[in-house]
Amino acid sequence: MRTTDLLFVSNKTGGKEFAKRLVSKNPLFVCVIGTTETAKIPNISAAGKNPNLTDYTPPADAEILLLGRCKCIRQIPVTPEGIPTPAIITRSAIQSSNVPSLIVDAGSRIKPMVPFVNLDGSYGKDIRSGKACKDALEIFQNAKTLGEQLSKLPGYLVIGESIPGGTTTALAVLLALGIDAIGRVSSSMSTNPHSLKTEVAKTALKAAGIEEGSLVDKPIQAVSKVGDPVLAAIAGLAVGATGNIPVMLAGGTQMGAALSLIHRIEPRVSQNLAIGTTSWLAQDPMSDLVGIIKQISDVPILAANLDFGSSRFQGLRAYEEGVVKEGVGAGGAIISTMIKSNGSITRDIVLKNVERGYAQMVMERK
Amino acid sequence: MRTTDLLFVSNKTGGKEFAKRLVSKNPLFVCVIGTTETAKIPNISAAGKNPNLTDYTPPADAEILLLGRCKCIRQIPVTPEGIPTPAIITRSAIQSSNVPSLIVDAGSRIKPMVPFVNLDGSYGKDIRSGKACKDALEIFQNAKTLGEQLSKLPGYLVIGESIPGGTTTALAVLLALGIDAIGRVSSSMSTNPHSLKTEVAKTALKAAGIEEGSLVDKPIQAVSKVGDPVLAAIAGLAVGATGNIPVMLAGGTQMGAALSLIHRIEPRVSQNLAIGTTSWLAQDPMSDLVGIIKQISDVPILAANLDFGSSRFQGLRAYEEGVVKEGVGAGGAIISTMIKSNGSITRDIVLKNVERGYAQMVMERK
Repeated sequence: MRTTDLLFVSNKTGGKEFAKRLVSKNPLFVCVIGTTETAKIPNISAAGKNPNLTDYTPPADAEILLLGRCKCIRQIPVTPEGIPTPAIITRSAIQSSNVPSLIVDAGSRIKPMVPFVNLDGSYGKDIRSGKACKDALEIFQNAKTLGEQLSKLPGYLVIGESIPGGTTTALAVLLALGIDAIGRVSSSMSTNPHSLKTEVAKTALKAAGIEEGSLVDKPIQAVSKVGDPVLAAIAGLAVGATGNIPVMLAGGTQMGAALSLIHRIEPRVSQNLAIGTTSWLAQDPMSDLVGIIKQISDVPILAANLDFGSSRFQGLRAYEEGVVKEGVGAGGAIISTMIKSNGSITRDIVLKNVERGYAQMVMERK
Repeated sequence: MRTTDLLFVSNKTGGKEFAKRLVSKNPLFVCVIGTTETAKIPNISAAGKNPNLTDYTPPADAEILLLGRCKCIRQIPVTPEGIPTPAIITRSAIQSSNVPSLIVDAGSRIKPMVPFVNLDGSYGKDIRSGKACKDALEIFQNAKTLGEQLSKLPGYLVIGESIPGGTTTALAVLLALGIDAIGRVSSSMSTNPHSLKTEVAKTALKAAGIEEGSLVDKPIQAVSKVGDPVLAAIAGLAVGATGNIPVMLAGGTQMGAALSLIHRIEPRVSQNLAIGTTSWLAQDPMSDLVGIIKQISDVPILAANLDFGSSRFQGLRAYEEGVVKEGVGAGGAIISTMIKSNGSITRDIVLKNVERGYAQMVMERK
């Protein structure tokens, strides 16, 4: 693998060993979807044209992954400025290397019109209620059962997510577990609304009657009070699967929150884990993934080194300006594609594949 | 593989080639569950202690497969005489060889309390309405999408089913497709109620306004009018997956109905298919699996050659008296276990494993 394609961001030795273990193994891409009412707070999420449309983003992302088009809405999800969902990147990656995907619904308001695994979870409430995800334990346990089954497949898991508002719930969970994450979580906007997120997260902790760090030994309670269903599901999948196979948590700072849960529930599993993300996220000056992860565990961080600056589409060039950055496991999906292809899928080929998908999914449907 | 363990019942050459192709490949066991109100007709199904309890058999079977115990009901499903569900055989098989399983809900009234794939199907109505499964097309399409994804996994699929009343809906579908199946479908009872089944199936065809053979070119319509959601899902899974990987239809005469659908929808896929069942079913004097299959296609029939006659448990010895015979993919699961173990799991070891499961799941919970 060329270093221009894959970056070893943190724990480089561990990252290289992890990547080596994935060579000639078959990835299964698992996309965990869900919603939290937290995303409806004005200006908190750009994962949808407007706050109410964010409900449709997770199911639409799932449909894009499996079908290459949406069914529950007419056009693919975009930010308020019209920049398309990172699902188009993930779809291009898994298509180009024939990676199977499985949609897991942790708890979403709108269900995708494609097959999905039901974990019997409800959608998340606004975390400012202090009662964000009442069935966190059931979701975790069901996801763990699923993870155990998937870990009997030969290969490894790449776990991505789609939940608008997810970095704010991640912040609240990180704070509840005593991780200093203020000003460090990422955002799908180019200007990260840190003060709004911090205010919401602190209000959530107050409403739940907890203090920063007070749930360090009660990780599921942290999700239940101030988290979201997707975090419970990712934690369960990883705890269930890492006993047998490697797991790549594909995402940004939300995966930091997932890792903090996993680490508190089952510390030994960190040995079979890595975080896979995009260079946009890993090098984002407005967030600090490395700073979050380092407080939890020395798991490696790998990043697909992407550059869409030369794209013929403005909607892709915008990724170079700090919009979206990551999501729907885009970075991890590309990393597994690069590894599966033994490096023959370079970042330039990734861009060409994504442009082809963009032309089909965005341009032809305008 | 010793011939005492595995029987090649029909198309022996094809069956041996098929079995050879599975060697050193990893099976994924897929259990498709669903309900049809047809099971509530008195004396038609023994897949539950009484007709109303049959609603709980599919979710309970799913729970047994993943957890080794039921959650939605206290005790495992039994026939009216108290003979336990074949799920305990399937569970023992997949456990002993570490085979992953995935539950697919085609449409069931009661949902399992374990993760399952949702195909957005409703439960089936009494086929005597002539409107048995209104969303057959959607279930088929969703299952096909799932089958396509699963076919990207390395290995092969073993597809079993749990739907009480399923042989009667199978009979009606076979008749609608012009297969002479009267007196040939199997039963979970030792005395097969053929005349009742035939009466129900003929009433269904009449209510649907169709004649025997009149839907030979409209297979999905046959399911929609006189079938059940599980048949739609199995057909979709097989059509979606057989383009890439081998598929074993694990069951008895219901798989005949599934095969007749698959064969009418996509004839070429028969090349990547086999039926895997138990010797109890294949050699059942009260039904005629071979006679059904031969009318459709020359796909091989393999059978796990089982003998529970020496069991220390009466509930297992009863299988030698023609009760239950097959279900929840028991035969196919054992075949894949035998092949995966390179023959080291013999039929004697199968019985020992099943007895261990029986002791845990039946005896300790009494």
